[in-house]
Amino acid sequence: MRVGVLTGGGDCPGLNAVIRGIVRKGVQEYGYDFTGFRDGWRGPLEGDSIQLDIPAVRGILPRGGTILGSSRTNPLKVDNGIRRIKENLAKSEVDALIAIGGEDTLGVAATLSDDHGVPCVGVPKTIDNDLSATDYTFGFDTAVNIATEAIDRLHTTAESHMRVLVVEVMGRHAGWIAIHSGLAGGANVILIPEQPFDVDQVCAWVTSRFKASYAPIVVVSEGAKPKDGDMVLKDGSLDEFGHVRLSGVGEWLAKEIERRTGKEARTTVLGHVQRGGTPSAFDRWLATRFGLHAIDAVREGDFGKMVALRGTDIVRVPIAQATAQLKTVDPKLYNEVGVFFG
Amino acid sequence: MRVGVLTGGGDCPGLNAVIRGIVRKGVQEYGYDFTGFRDGWRGPLEGDSIQLDIPAVRGILPRGGTILGSSRTNPLKVDNGIRRIKENLAKSEVDALIAIGGEDTLGVAATLSDDHGVPCVGVPKTIDNDLSATDYTFGFDTAVNIATEAIDRLHTTAESHMRVLVVEVMGRHAGWIAIHSGLAGGANVILIPEQPFDVDQVCAWVTSRFKASYAPIVVVSEGAKPKDGDMVLKDGSLDEFGHVRLSGVGEWLAKEIERRTGKEARTTVLGHVQRGGTPSAFDRWLATRFGLHAIDAVREGDFGKMVALRGTDIVRVPIAQATAQLKTVDPKLYNEVGVFFG
Amino acid sequence: MRVGVLTGGGDCPGLNAVIRGIVRKGVQEYGYDFTGFRDGWRGPLEGDSIQLDIPAVRGILPRGGTILGSSRTNPLKVDNGIRRIKENLAKSEVDALIAIGGEDTLGVAATLSDDHGVPCVGVPKTIDNDLSATDYTFGFDTAVNIATEAIDRLHTTAESHMRVLVVEVMGRHAGWIAIHSGLAGGANVILIPEQPFDVDQVCAWVTSRFKASYAPIVVVSEGAKPKDGDMVLKDGSLDEFGHVRLSGVGEWLAKEIERRTGKEARTTVLGHVQRGGTPSAFDRWLATRFGLHAIDAVREGDFGKMVALRGTDIVRVPIAQATAQLKTVDPKLYNEVGVFFG
Amino acid sequence: MRVGVLTGGGDCPGLNAVIRGIVRKGVQEYGYDFTGFRDGWRGPLEGDSIQLDIPAVRGILPRGGTILGSSRTNPLKVDNGIRRIKENLAKSEVDALIAIGGEDTLGVAATLSDDHGVPCVGVPKTIDNDLSATDYTFGFDTAVNIATEAIDRLHTTAESHMRVLVVEVMGRHAGWIAIHSGLAGGANVILIPEQPFDVDQVCAWVTSRFKASYAPIVVVSEGAKPKDGDMVLKDGSLDEFGHVRLSGVGEWLAKEIERRTGKEARTTVLGHVQRGGTPSAFDRWLATRFGLHAIDAVREGDFGKMVALRGTDIVRVPIAQATAQLKTVDPKLYNEVGVFFG
Repeated sequence: MRVGVLTGGGDCPGLNAVIRGIVRKGVQEYGYDFTGFRDGWRGPLEGDSIQLDIPAVRGILPRGGTILGSSRTNPLKVDNGIRRIKENLAKSEVDALIAIGGEDTLGVAATLSDDHGVPCVGVPKTIDNDLSATDYTFGFDTAVNIATEAIDRLHTTAESHMRVLVVEVMGRHAGWIAIHSGLAGGANVILIPEQPFDVDQVCAWVTSRFKASYAPIVVVSEGAKPKDGDMVLKDGSLDEFGHVRLSGVGEWLAKEIERRTGKEARTTVLGHVQRGGTPSAFDRWLATRFGLHAIDAVREGDFGKMVALRGTDIVRVPIAQATAQLKTVDPKLYNEVGVFFG
Repeated sequence: MRVGVLTGGGDCPGLNAVIRGIVRKGVQEYGYDFTGFRDGWRGPLEGDSIQLDIPAVRGILPRGGTILGSSRTNPLKVDNGIRRIKENLAKSEVDALIAIGGEDTLGVAATLSDDHGVPCVGVPKTIDNDLSATDYTFGFDTAVNIATEAIDRLHTTAESHMRVLVVEVMGRHAGWIAIHSGLAGGANVILIPEQPFDVDQVCAWVTSRFKASYAPIVVVSEGAKPKDGDMVLKDGSLDEFGHVRLSGVGEWLAKEIERRTGKEARTTVLGHVQRGGTPSAFDRWLATRFGLHAIDAVREGDFGKMVALRGTDIVRVPIAQATAQLKTVDPKLYNEVGVFFG
Repeated sequence: MRVGVLTGGGDCPGLNAVIRGIVRKGVQEYGYDFTGFRDGWRGPLEGDSIQLDIPAVRGILPRGGTILGSSRTNPLKVDNGIRRIKENLAKSEVDALIAIGGEDTLGVAATLSDDHGVPCVGVPKTIDNDLSATDYTFGFDTAVNIATEAIDRLHTTAESHMRVLVVEVMGRHAGWIAIHSGLAGGANVILIPEQPFDVDQVCAWVTSRFKASYAPIVVVSEGAKPKDGDMVLKDGSLDEFGHVRLSGVGEWLAKEIERRTGKEARTTVLGHVQRGGTPSAFDRWLATRFGLHAIDAVREGDFGKMVALRGTDIVRVPIAQATAQLKTVDPKLYNEVGVFFG
Repeated sequence: MRVGVLTGGGDCPGLNAVIRGIVRKGVQEYGYDFTGFRDGWRGPLEGDSIQLDIPAVRGILPRGGTILGSSRTNPLKVDNGIRRIKENLAKSEVDALIAIGGEDTLGVAATLSDDHGVPCVGVPKTIDNDLSATDYTFGFDTAVNIATEAIDRLHTTAESHMRVLVVEVMGRHAGWIAIHSGLAGGANVILIPEQPFDVDQVCAWVTSRFKASYAPIVVVSEGAKPKDGDMVLKDGSLDEFGHVRLSGVGEWLAKEIERRTGKEARTTVLGHVQRGGTPSAFDRWLATRFGLHAIDAVREGDFGKMVALRGTDIVRVPIAQATAQLKTVDPKLYNEVGVFFG
């Protein structure tokens, strides 16, 4: 038995831990061989692979990134993509495939498995934690810890200068990183994509915080949007160098707060530091267990499934079902956290 | 309505976050007043309390320890303990009590609530994560992160000198910290109280690791015990200064490994650093939500209950039931992790 | 004897450690009283102060920011500023003043001391480390550690996606943070204000790094400028919301690298996280010793002087002389570090 | 030109950074070849070496330990040690040697260079920072940061339970780690090998701290000794398992404090975690520059010298002179820090 492994989509702490879990258990307990495909679906599409054995996975547990590389290549959008993948799998004598990735990567795995007879098992990966069917995804806890530590540091700067600090964190469609790090960091306002915000309400919270002689921290998901129809960035507008303007919601909101409250406001965009580097202990634990259970699914021939966390158990769910819907922040939870606003 | 709050038992990162959550929601949403009892059950027993209001809980979210102090005082073992508590609660006009603590502290709360008509709500606290009815307790994630970071650091020392390093972590009756930090830190052997260990098997794993040209890290719970009846420490034995000898399993095991394998071995006892200091983001999140839900239970008159984590939800369970049984590491889980031994 | 203390200018980890050092030694060894002026020179200008005694400085050593607050108020630019300060000092019965701050704050102290008979001692503070006469200033080591940790994290993201990552760090006029964190973080290009850079040379280094199958990290001081006369940002230009455009050198450079090399490039602006939060051990050591030596200078009546680090010794230098010239990165040192470029 | 490199003595964060600095500059700027000898002086003694080139030093900057391995082998105590080294150097065509290590390792290098015509350059390494002629050695800053973070965490545990916490840190002959981490961590007592301590004085400080309603932290170097002739450990005494007893000063002191003050006291021995793992930014900077200057010394034929830090400059000093005397904590500095005791 030879099993292929690939990692697709954005960088996420814990990818190497998954790979190591798969290979350690697959080799030691089941005697499998492994082929690592490079750069997500580009690997099987172009037949680009490396050998994956126990020496190859030594020492990678604490390392961020992925030793297999990643890409956003989607074989469903490539001419003869599926045929080429099947040919390359046959050529490499790969009998089953484990795909580690987000919605897009797993969507391909579901199609291959359900419609084209390629035995696939999925491992969910989204730093935004917005995948249904699993309580948490690895990488998320690391991102939240990094964002929380940054917010901790920003408090003292805010207090010393009595300024508003707006912190923009990851989260295009779901506010999980914002709500977790904002609560953990003691933010005074948390804004998420699921709940369009009212700038005047934000300003009221900011003002109330100053009245208590403290300086406010506003945590905002990159995908959060104002209620009142204000455009945050004009898509396609060009700056003086002819480049498309990249203005995020954080920068825009800081300016609006300054304009409406008269208080100085600054923005910090945490960006890529949230998704690189060594994984937290929880993410190493979760990612490793995902790897161990994914190879068990292969062993049992349980294809078309994805491993998932439920409470403290690892379970299996159909990939197609798991990726059908985004997991967003429940209004009830947002409301619960709202007691700390202002 | 006036609510009393107390924290009992050992130190645990997140205690202050619970207190803050209770007070912020209780004051802002329900208009309650709060009395903070000092040093666990000693507070209501002796009528020793401080005022708990919003200014008192400002800035405490990231701080370890507890602003209320703690103790292991057990009023059930004190003459007229319960009567004195009831008198002091009456004197302070406290209508309900939230007790944050482990098995012992919560046991008192259950007795008071179930048998003596003192309305109590419990919040579970055990750094060892060994309380049934909740997926996780706060403080545990912080301890695991600290232990994992220490193991990460010890790897390079082990490699540079080709020594065995034995790391003793917390866990008297359950191996949760050992198994989580050992897996996350890439330990080569993990020993837990639930599974008496065979020293020769440990030595075989150690030797096999050296054969692969790496140096082994052995993670051992303070409560782990050897299979073969060797005494780890002789209770009551005195050293040359007339003090009771304090020799832990880690130190003992390192000596045994040296003796049996001929390899140099060293011990690191992580000790109290695992339970102090700022909580991780997850522990701040969990502890805060426990606080918010505990005051909701008071609001709803749902006494004799304890808040608990199930998946991502906070639920309520009868205190008496939750503390009836220790949550230990399932042999199946220990076996799952065993693939990384040696 | 009553001594006034104030902190001026930007936030910097270690300010509280200085204050604590001054007060602990002043009270315990010399029996002095202390007045803390709020928000830099605004405090003595407006007679706004708090009491500074031993309880007031308990627990502040590990905290970022300043318990006294800060501002950029310059009394030399305020009508009757010096007269008002002298009146308020007399009213508060303050006999001497310790001013903790950068070039501007210390410049005022020098003028007051040298020209107006107000006995002042200075403590240098600049997170950029660009003050002559001292080997290091506190806060700098913390900033370098934070930037280095961020660069460590960004490496794995860069590698996983084979992208260029541009990291913009603090340093308006001097490249100390960039050169220290860039070297420590293993950056492939470091650009500093002292050395206008050639974008084509940067692109050559970037390309050479990709040829070695690695992804480049470019660390750039916020004050670095290209050689060839390209404008990084057009001062005064407005964006579509009518706000002044804030485009930093990092964002601009990433676009240029993309345009010239065809490789994807991303920017991370570390911003305020570099200057907030708990100080590193070195900064706590240095800041505390600055405080201890500043109060000794007061005790000895050695006014108009500033404390400074030389090797491992704390010495005193005339404030006016110390602030006369910016400490910039020596071309020889930049050249030494250049062996790691590309 | 072929240059040999070796690392001797105890583990120390920054060793890999030195090696990388040497190789990067040696290869790129001077076109040298390199031979890495394994496990300190054992390497050239037994002719055990690996190839050192640019690929071999990629990615090692942030890693603790040493890719060359280390040992305490002393060729001066081995039959024909020097002759065998000279033969092996000749056989490997090594023209000069860079020895990175402490007093012992450098002592051999001095002898080889001064008395036996083997061209050697030294790089000082001692985590204890106790080597004369250099302001700081790499690894020390990392150890101090780790110890300080541990002390930060222990404060909250001490406060919550009103206990004495004794923290034993590294430092056999010099108290640098204790004095730096103790000051930075806000310890209430710091005990160092240079100043035999009076247990009653320690108890007085402890008691005074409790009177102020705080719990004391006592930081003690492993090499600190009581004044009054009490034996801390009886060399050669055996415990109940027939092993030599290992009781450190920390454990002993905690018991004495308990006995004399009646307060509960606990010990934490930080141990090996202080010397493993990723180096701090300062240590990476210092270690890298030591490497760059060591290869410059080889280039200039300046043998028998050791690189050293003076202020912010790297200088060269005769090895023999640099190792002649231990650098201990000046009583004046200890006294300066004493203002925070009690």
